[in-house]
Amino acid sequence: MLQNSSRELFVIANELADLARVTSLKYFRTRNLTSDNKDEDGGFDPVTRADRETEMVMREHLAQVRPDDGILGEEYGVEESRSGLTWVLDPIDGTRGYISGTPSWGVLISLEDENGPVLGVIDQPYVRERFLGGLGVSELTRDDETTDLRVRKCGDISHATLLSTYPEVGSERERLSFGKVRDQVNLTRYGLDCYGYALLALGQVDLVIEAGLSPYDISAPIAVIEAAGGIVTNWQGEPAHKGGQVIAAGDPAVHKAALELLGS
Amino acid sequence: MLQNSSRELFVIANELADLARVTSLKYFRTRNLTSDNKDEDGGFDPVTRADRETEMVMREHLAQVRPDDGILGEEYGVEESRSGLTWVLDPIDGTRGYISGTPSWGVLISLEDENGPVLGVIDQPYVRERFLGGLGVSELTRDDETTDLRVRKCGDISHATLLSTYPEVGSERERLSFGKVRDQVNLTRYGLDCYGYALLALGQVDLVIEAGLSPYDISAPIAVIEAAGGIVTNWQGEPAHKGGQVIAAGDPAVHKAALELLGS
Repeated sequence: MLQNSSRELFVIANELADLARVTSLKYFRTRNLTSDNKDEDGGFDPVTRADRETEMVMREHLAQVRPDDGILGEEYGVEESRSGLTWVLDPIDGTRGYISGTPSWGVLISLEDENGPVLGVIDQPYVRERFLGGLGVSELTRDDETTDLRVRKCGDISHATLLSTYPEVGSERERLSFGKVRDQVNLTRYGLDCYGYALLALGQVDLVIEAGLSPYDISAPIAVIEAAGGIVTNWQGEPAHKGGQVIAAGDPAVHKAALELLGS
Repeated sequence: MLQNSSRELFVIANELADLARVTSLKYFRTRNLTSDNKDEDGGFDPVTRADRETEMVMREHLAQVRPDDGILGEEYGVEESRSGLTWVLDPIDGTRGYISGTPSWGVLISLEDENGPVLGVIDQPYVRERFLGGLGVSELTRDDETTDLRVRKCGDISHATLLSTYPEVGSERERLSFGKVRDQVNLTRYGLDCYGYALLALGQVDLVIEAGLSPYDISAPIAVIEAAGGIVTNWQGEPAHKGGQVIAAGDPAVHKAALELLGS
């Protein structure tokens, strides 16, 4: 069913990403952008008008062109699906990076059926890169140039490059588990937000490990990485599109080795 | 003296950055790029043919157009100066980021006289951004668009955004000192390499704190940040262009507060 309408779905995914690109860039690196703190436990979880307006332009477009599809968005919650399909939207994944001026944030768009994500977009508006995967397609487009996305073989975990957004990865227990993998890999880098998953699909790195994710943080990356030949699960090796603890790998052997370390 | 020849020096700095951009991009994100490990103490300090060739094209150009100037380059060492001026080159600052496909690495070019850097370039070839500062100029150029660079006021350190490349910042003692600042700021991000200094000059963040730097890591950032109205010193508040411990700030009050925390 989805394969038959895949052309339309790609068109809509790209329209959403185009709209989000314009709105998110309107506020990027402006000097008067302020953020509200969503964290009620004393931390800092910023949200800006850029997050809100970017999600709203996508929701308004979907209401026009796909009124029966559901929506799950970070800022404005759930719109129930009548078609069996739901668009999962994170207007600005990595708001901390966004308000710091770094190009590691991205717009995440995915389409889910009852089994999980079938199509995903990771768009980096400032660098003008769009990573797209699902329904038989796996590609990066920048300006007018399109290249295939494909994960790389790594062989042994001791050769792996590992990415994560924060060195504090989740709870104390999760941080200790993460440390067991970090101690085995060749290189660990932080601060990438969703761009880390894009680099994995591009075959530039071998592992991304995070914890405490929401569904909209990981749904699009799953579609992009799986289409590029990679694996995304939770730390128990199960489906990860509901969020929580996530491990993404390009090489099955490295995924297996890292899972064992996380569970040890 | 330098002011009289500033037009020529800008032309040369831009020529060097143009050459470095072509060579560094030639290998960026290629699948067969291998790295050698320069670290003899068991760590991982990668260098690639991209680092070596990028520095070499800049050295060859300088030999043609400024044969009397000295050169200090990361990969090929010192060429003594006969003019009193020395070009300080880091062909790829952030090789770990480069081999991971992230756009946080950069080409660093500075010109020093006997007192330190007078002109600096931080170039990010993939994003096509060039941050330039010194001799009365302070600007970011991307494609055909040029904008002024200017640090921002922050007021109190509790509002500050702090950047550093690694959470492991230097030695154990340095890491503890860094932690005292990290615990006071609003937001800390890692993984930026030289791009963090560029974001400070652009007024997007408030503090960059690092340790264990070499002169070629920090010479160009000093010129760019000072031209944009910021401050760069070592952790004792003294000139930092010889490397080591570095703190860069946009707001003098935040610089002072962070220095006190580092020394406490």
